[in-house]
Amino acid sequence: MKVQSSRDFKLQREVDYGTPEQNKAVKEIVAAIKQEGDAALFRYTEKFDGVRLSENNIRVTQEELQGAYAEVEDSFVSAIRAAADNIRAFHARQKRNSWMDLQPDGTILGQVIRPLQRVGVYVPGGKASYPSSVLMNVIPAQIAGVPEIVMVTPPATGGKAGIDPYILVAAAEAGVNEIYRVGGAQAVAALAFGTDSIAPVDKICGPGNIYVALAKREVYGAVDIDSIAGPSEIVVLADDSAEPSYIAADLLSQAEHDEMASAILVTPSQTLADAVSAEVEKQLRALPREAIARASVENYGAIIVVENLEEGISVVNRLAPEHLEIVAQDPMGLAGAIQNAGAIFLGPYSSEPVGDYFAGPNHIIPTNGTARFSSPVDVDDFIKKSSLIYYSKEALLRDGGTIMELARREGLEAHARAVEIRLTNEGKGGEGRGE
Amino acid sequence: MKVQSSRDFKLQREVDYGTPEQNKAVKEIVAAIKQEGDAALFRYTEKFDGVRLSENNIRVTQEELQGAYAEVEDSFVSAIRAAADNIRAFHARQKRNSWMDLQPDGTILGQVIRPLQRVGVYVPGGKASYPSSVLMNVIPAQIAGVPEIVMVTPPATGGKAGIDPYILVAAAEAGVNEIYRVGGAQAVAALAFGTDSIAPVDKICGPGNIYVALAKREVYGAVDIDSIAGPSEIVVLADDSAEPSYIAADLLSQAEHDEMASAILVTPSQTLADAVSAEVEKQLRALPREAIARASVENYGAIIVVENLEEGISVVNRLAPEHLEIVAQDPMGLAGAIQNAGAIFLGPYSSEPVGDYFAGPNHIIPTNGTARFSSPVDVDDFIKKSSLIYYSKEALLRDGGTIMELARREGLEAHARAVEIRLTNEGKGGEGRGE
Repeated sequence: MKVQSSRDFKLQREVDYGTPEQNKAVKEIVAAIKQEGDAALFRYTEKFDGVRLSENNIRVTQEELQGAYAEVEDSFVSAIRAAADNIRAFHARQKRNSWMDLQPDGTILGQVIRPLQRVGVYVPGGKASYPSSVLMNVIPAQIAGVPEIVMVTPPATGGKAGIDPYILVAAAEAGVNEIYRVGGAQAVAALAFGTDSIAPVDKICGPGNIYVALAKREVYGAVDIDSIAGPSEIVVLADDSAEPSYIAADLLSQAEHDEMASAILVTPSQTLADAVSAEVEKQLRALPREAIARASVENYGAIIVVENLEEGISVVNRLAPEHLEIVAQDPMGLAGAIQNAGAIFLGPYSSEPVGDYFAGPNHIIPTNGTARFSSPVDVDDFIKKSSLIYYSKEALLRDGGTIMELARREGLEAHARAVEIRLTNEGKGGEGRGE
Repeated sequence: MKVQSSRDFKLQREVDYGTPEQNKAVKEIVAAIKQEGDAALFRYTEKFDGVRLSENNIRVTQEELQGAYAEVEDSFVSAIRAAADNIRAFHARQKRNSWMDLQPDGTILGQVIRPLQRVGVYVPGGKASYPSSVLMNVIPAQIAGVPEIVMVTPPATGGKAGIDPYILVAAAEAGVNEIYRVGGAQAVAALAFGTDSIAPVDKICGPGNIYVALAKREVYGAVDIDSIAGPSEIVVLADDSAEPSYIAADLLSQAEHDEMASAILVTPSQTLADAVSAEVEKQLRALPREAIARASVENYGAIIVVENLEEGISVVNRLAPEHLEIVAQDPMGLAGAIQNAGAIFLGPYSSEPVGDYFAGPNHIIPTNGTARFSSPVDVDDFIKKSSLIYYSKEALLRDGGTIMELARREGLEAHARAVEIRLTNEGKGGEGRGE
């Protein structure tokens, strides 16, 4: 692994907006689903997935869902349950109440918090299908109180139900209400606009390939979508109290994800830098996904030697990584200086996989420097707020003149008159029916 | 105003994505600013606004800002201050604390809440420039704790400083830190990528014309943006306790905004429906913006007569309006049934302009049915969250096996090994330097 001295290192990579052909194909699929509904949904599923669907078999039945439990190890069920419990406990702390401010003159101002009514979660097929991601997308919605959580996933990915049984078990444990065996852009469009078989949702989340990503962009506005995730990243900030073999293992756990994943060590210790570099090479050779991890390390990995931890923190804040590990003498004491990082792992035992799978915080975290302005998925992503204004007569008589002045200053006379008609009628003792 | 019976009335209008020429022009401008910085910014400002800028006069000085106060009425300053106080008080209640969960085994999990570092607010020139919108965009950012709030606005819109003095006073009162006299797509690009004169921001918000909207879309990803607002809407749900002249005035205060604005009355009372219809016509004739309001009422206005309030509520939830007024015998008792509405105004004295200007809640509210899944602008729009994980050795020894099982199930061996190397080293009493 390259050891570099500090410089204007940039993590940013280009976002994939798809080829013109991919964009055209997605637009066509979305338009067809919008217009033809189920007919188009079944047609594309046969074309892309080789599976003939009808209204009778598009939805996974309770029997199929329960059957999936027989196809997985008991230890997996226990592990998923333990993880789900932790994720639930963490996200439950994010839940917020509606509030009201009752003022002495009778005016009430407030903010009403409500769950979205219906949310769709996309789960990819094949190697990108991760049971842990099902938990991380579904549980925050469930904690938010979303009454209808719908999952879609391609129909020929394994198991007796045609869907990977590990995914089905994770969905059942997380609390998914409906599962449909459709995938791709056609599934996204069906969730957005609805068909006879699938009722439309308010928000679509979950990862997917370029067609899924483009379809989500295409339907955005009709429904909400989550952000489109880029390749994963880790930055480790460490001093010479760190164990090099741990740091190397953590960097590689990121690098094995994807050839475009990025793993970076920032340290003031040349000794640690050299030791980690050697450890990375040693551990790399023993990895099943060596080729992917090696490409990631070579293209997007770096060991950056800085003057001191203070400079290290400023490099971290510039990188704004998805995952940050701080492995130093007093890691908690350094956390306060971190402005930009999606998730912060502190101390020698907080290896990133602890958070990826188990601790409780969400593993869907802003990538590609966007931690500067965005946040891990949480309960807030599945609620909406309404302002509430109950103005009293007393308050309107008091404030009406000021409101009219501001409205007239902006040339909005009808705004002023909506207040004036009340003041005229009620301020002069008129018998407005509004009382 | 048309009186209709209940049916599948749809509020949705098309979103303006601009013409191909507009899209091309914006892409060129954004690329030029990204590459050339100030040189391109000054060139486009001369071309589009007819003003020659340099690094010496692009920024509004403190003297110019203070000078604006002499150009406006004292009563305006008082009115803006009173409104700002209310807006501050309401948004202060939205502020949230970072939290930590300290577990007995030494593990700490938490969520860190931080303000964005630097936010840019776009303020349009001409008739669409509203001092009240400056307050509504800036104050939530300020309450969130954003240390640098930057405003951009076109350079030839009035006053001694070249900028509408009412806008400057509102900016000063709201707490803007820097003001630059640039507008259009070039200003948006300068905020996103930075130039020698303007440091880059993390988020851009505020309304603008189609070029501004397209530029925001274009730079999204490099920075965050707010949502693109559609034409404004009001739905009034009223029973026969309502005063028809008040309802008509409120509908027209919405209709005067824009020919595409939408004003709808939903009522079980045929008497009220007829009376409001007559009142709308009467009040319309006396309005300075009659032509705009009349076009809005004719094209996007409606009076919908429903069977009862229950059906009225279901119509409202389907419309998911930006603004909802409930004028009925027990308005607060009906609020709980409203699932979808950006802002809810209750009772006869909560005329929409009360919220537009003064009460405290934000007036930037989701339009076009998006209240189904989005929310008024608030303090949350100017913060970011980081998860925090400080796992203890005890916890890792306890949970490590489960984490490894989940990682291996997903085929991510390096994830499992990052845990395993610690268990091997520390679980067996090895002398890991990590202790």
